[in-house]
Amino acid sequence: MQVGELVERVRGGDRRALARTISLVENAAPQLREITAGLAPAAGRARITGLTGPPGVGKSTSTSALVAALRARGETAAVLAVDPSSPFTGGALLGDRVRMQEHATDPGVYIRSMASRGHLGGLSWATPHALRVLDAAGFDHVLVETVGVGQAEVDIAAHADTTVVLAAPGMGDGVQAGKAGVLEIADILAVNKADREGAQAAVRDLRQMVAQVDRAPEEWKPPVVAMSAAKGEGVDDLLKRLDDHAAHLRATGELERRRRARARREIEAIAMAALVERLADVRGHAALDALAGEVAAGGDPYAAADSVLAALEG
Amino acid sequence: MQVGELVERVRGGDRRALARTISLVENAAPQLREITAGLAPAAGRARITGLTGPPGVGKSTSTSALVAALRARGETAAVLAVDPSSPFTGGALLGDRVRMQEHATDPGVYIRSMASRGHLGGLSWATPHALRVLDAAGFDHVLVETVGVGQAEVDIAAHADTTVVLAAPGMGDGVQAGKAGVLEIADILAVNKADREGAQAAVRDLRQMVAQVDRAPEEWKPPVVAMSAAKGEGVDDLLKRLDDHAAHLRATGELERRRRARARREIEAIAMAALVERLADVRGHAALDALAGEVAAGGDPYAAADSVLAALEG
Repeated sequence: MQVGELVERVRGGDRRALARTISLVENAAPQLREITAGLAPAAGRARITGLTGPPGVGKSTSTSALVAALRARGETAAVLAVDPSSPFTGGALLGDRVRMQEHATDPGVYIRSMASRGHLGGLSWATPHALRVLDAAGFDHVLVETVGVGQAEVDIAAHADTTVVLAAPGMGDGVQAGKAGVLEIADILAVNKADREGAQAAVRDLRQMVAQVDRAPEEWKPPVVAMSAAKGEGVDDLLKRLDDHAAHLRATGELERRRRARARREIEAIAMAALVERLADVRGHAALDALAGEVAAGGDPYAAADSVLAALEG
Repeated sequence: MQVGELVERVRGGDRRALARTISLVENAAPQLREITAGLAPAAGRARITGLTGPPGVGKSTSTSALVAALRARGETAAVLAVDPSSPFTGGALLGDRVRMQEHATDPGVYIRSMASRGHLGGLSWATPHALRVLDAAGFDHVLVETVGVGQAEVDIAAHADTTVVLAAPGMGDGVQAGKAGVLEIADILAVNKADREGAQAAVRDLRQMVAQVDRAPEEWKPPVVAMSAAKGEGVDDLLKRLDDHAAHLRATGELERRRRARARREIEAIAMAALVERLADVRGHAALDALAGEVAAGGDPYAAADSVLAALEG
């Protein structure tokens, strides 16, 4: 299939074209430059929501319940499950997909997992590409869910308009809500498994944490929602908060600010990947061998690096 | 202290100047460019030996015993303990230093740990810098020991002339010798704690593994040494194998090949660090903001990245 045709099909929402294009993203295929130029004008319409939280809080169940709520309103949704820990798709994601099965035959839903193959800029490069593909395909919502822990949980906020941090009642006291940095990125906090013991305490704890942050009166104050995604309880409340936040983003100009910051990071990631690639080209260069010989014999490695950089730019 | 004076003092083996210069390496200080140019002509004389192996095999004890054996022959040695896991020096390294205490007052021995502060090229950038400092200070031997596990164990081979992989008799059967990749980088295998049960079996297993690799007759076949570093037994045998390998490296031209490959990687790491730094400069650029606005509105991020790269080169 020619790139032009692939772009047309993606813009028409063709599932096979979508799958193929996201595989090209995973593999950092050279065609992506042309594909991206073709898709960019069609993107920017979808609401992009990030879902994160520590393992065991019910991320996939929550995403699935949110998809069901969106579908009940007649809106379409694509789900991108991002796995930064694995160089290949599989493992945990397979189980997650099973939980998403109720949507498998719904033409208004598209579910895809994506792994970082570890080359170029990794997920900071790949995620905006994949989100653009799903956005340009015409979905009303793109939900991006991280499978990883640690930095990956925090990074997801950089890709979304709205970030939902999921928590669950802890064992005993306290709340199982990941590390400190994770709470800071939350636009909305959702305590899942709210039918379990300790749920009310968890909600209270999180509200207290939110209250401790100094905010101007017009600033968004992250609401704390209690829900039981497996039972479908509280999901409408989460959806209402998502709508409120989307309205807030538009009304305050924050949507534009966030998308601009995202575009900035994407440009940087593409530029960085291009630089790494050029350096790889220079690696094959005979001149580098000669420079290495000089440095091995007591030459200045900085002067040698300067020559390499000059060759890059030449 | 001026850079010129610092360089002179390092070349004279001044300990305070050494400590200060390696701290500059850890912090990726801008003076390193000038320092490196001053030290490079004096480097290249030391034999650089890497020591690696999984936690618990007695790496520090083995290094300390090897230092004692070298000192007994009247040779001087610097030890660089590299900790890729920690952004700061401390923790495990402190205990290691205690084990090295027997050499603390010996003017022919210098011991230093180095952590990656996480910026620029990390340890692939910092390690060759630190090795050059110790080499230029006139030590006959530089022993570089990794404290980390995983990739860090394998990476150490990229910095050394000769790599010693340490193993220890396993619990029960088999040998505790790290992951597959670690054996592949060994020029010499040393089974430490050879007085323990299973040591003979471990030596036999490792010899079998070595024998399974196809080699040309003139190729180096990694010997397997049994020793008890804590008791000082077998250390002379290890030293003899190190001498054999050094002679092999010189006779076959492999020393020059390895050092050239190392110089190549160092040049690349310096060039990469320079590129990352330049990209950081561009980040402050007002033009990037305008480009981000265009991309956020449906513009092509690749075209924007091209403009950024053009600005880098301008």
